[in-house]
Amino acid sequence: MPAVTDAATAAALGDRLLADMEPWRDWGKPTQQAIVDAALDSFAERGFHGTSLKHIAQGSGLSTAALYVHFASKEELLFALSRRGHTLALGIVATAAAIPDPVTAAQVLVYSFTRWHAEARTLARVVQYEQGALGPGHAEEIAGLRRDTEQAVRDLVGRGVASARFAVPDVRGASAAILSLGIDVARWYSSRSPWTPHDLGVLYVELASRLLGVGE
Amino acid sequence: MPAVTDAATAAALGDRLLADMEPWRDWGKPTQQAIVDAALDSFAERGFHGTSLKHIAQGSGLSTAALYVHFASKEELLFALSRRGHTLALGIVATAAAIPDPVTAAQVLVYSFTRWHAEARTLARVVQYEQGALGPGHAEEIAGLRRDTEQAVRDLVGRGVASARFAVPDVRGASAAILSLGIDVARWYSSRSPWTPHDLGVLYVELASRLLGVGE
Repeated sequence: MPAVTDAATAAALGDRLLADMEPWRDWGKPTQQAIVDAALDSFAERGFHGTSLKHIAQGSGLSTAALYVHFASKEELLFALSRRGHTLALGIVATAAAIPDPVTAAQVLVYSFTRWHAEARTLARVVQYEQGALGPGHAEEIAGLRRDTEQAVRDLVGRGVASARFAVPDVRGASAAILSLGIDVARWYSSRSPWTPHDLGVLYVELASRLLGVGE
Repeated sequence: MPAVTDAATAAALGDRLLADMEPWRDWGKPTQQAIVDAALDSFAERGFHGTSLKHIAQGSGLSTAALYVHFASKEELLFALSRRGHTLALGIVATAAAIPDPVTAAQVLVYSFTRWHAEARTLARVVQYEQGALGPGHAEEIAGLRRDTEQAVRDLVGRGVASARFAVPDVRGASAAILSLGIDVARWYSSRSPWTPHDLGVLYVELASRLLGVGE
């Protein structure tokens, strides 16, 4: 079995990384925060197309006229959610990948990315399932954030292979698999799952370490 | 590096398994086939809520009145797509899991499940992203197919652990990870990806074998 250097240390570093991200979760002013929260709730419950501005107004305690002061359209709200979700995901990945030791970097990345997808699953699902509703310019900006995230993982895996800390058959394929493990958590994880987000993160550190051939 | 007994053999068995599934891909009568194909195209392009029966009628070359002879509603069409997708996925998993040797079974399962998700990605995405639009009774039937699929993978991983062919820290967690790897392929795979569905299946056999601790 590949050695997992220390999943508990990786989890502690990952918890600190996620805590440092906390301020980023804010949407700005309290009114904007209330609007975006109401939009997320309604998109999750009724879908983007099933949501009207009335639903969002009701959920945020504002008039529809007041909504327009902050957001020009429903699509703007979806874009705000998508940009925030993708910026956070990229922030987690890039911060973890910047850790000099590639094994620690990969373990902190997998722990934080997995835990975050379990906790932020409602946001992640809406962003994923409704992405077709983004306008072309907005879709392009999101695609850029995704490419940057994928590239950060590939660079890390490549660095680990170059220094013989990882052994993988295909850097790009192993990177896609590492990202898939975390992203798909948002699809299947629920409050009835037999792991806390923390415990799932620790378990996935071990599975990802095997996948990357750590310690072989 | 965990020994992959023979990924090429697993792929050949998987290709045969998928070929045996071909007849299941049919939707019945040619008219029904045309309707369901048009519904899938429109759901993929415009989303379920953005699709009208007129779009499906135009896509299938029928009148909207003629559609009602075969399907009572747009939701019935989504359910037909979802049931077919989930039945095929369960068929792939259950057929592979029935192979007596657990390593071969897991490798054939991962190859076929991965290749199928790359090829059937449009269907898989529509089924996943629009699942909230299913009526309660239909949603329950689909949830049952998902549970059966998850259980078949868990039973296989448990069998491999019991016979010391696999070494995993958590049978349920490793099973979720194996399924995630395949399912998430439908999200990210495109015709511009640097692997054919076959090559990705072979690569994932190796990654999944490491994850399951095969040959350790």
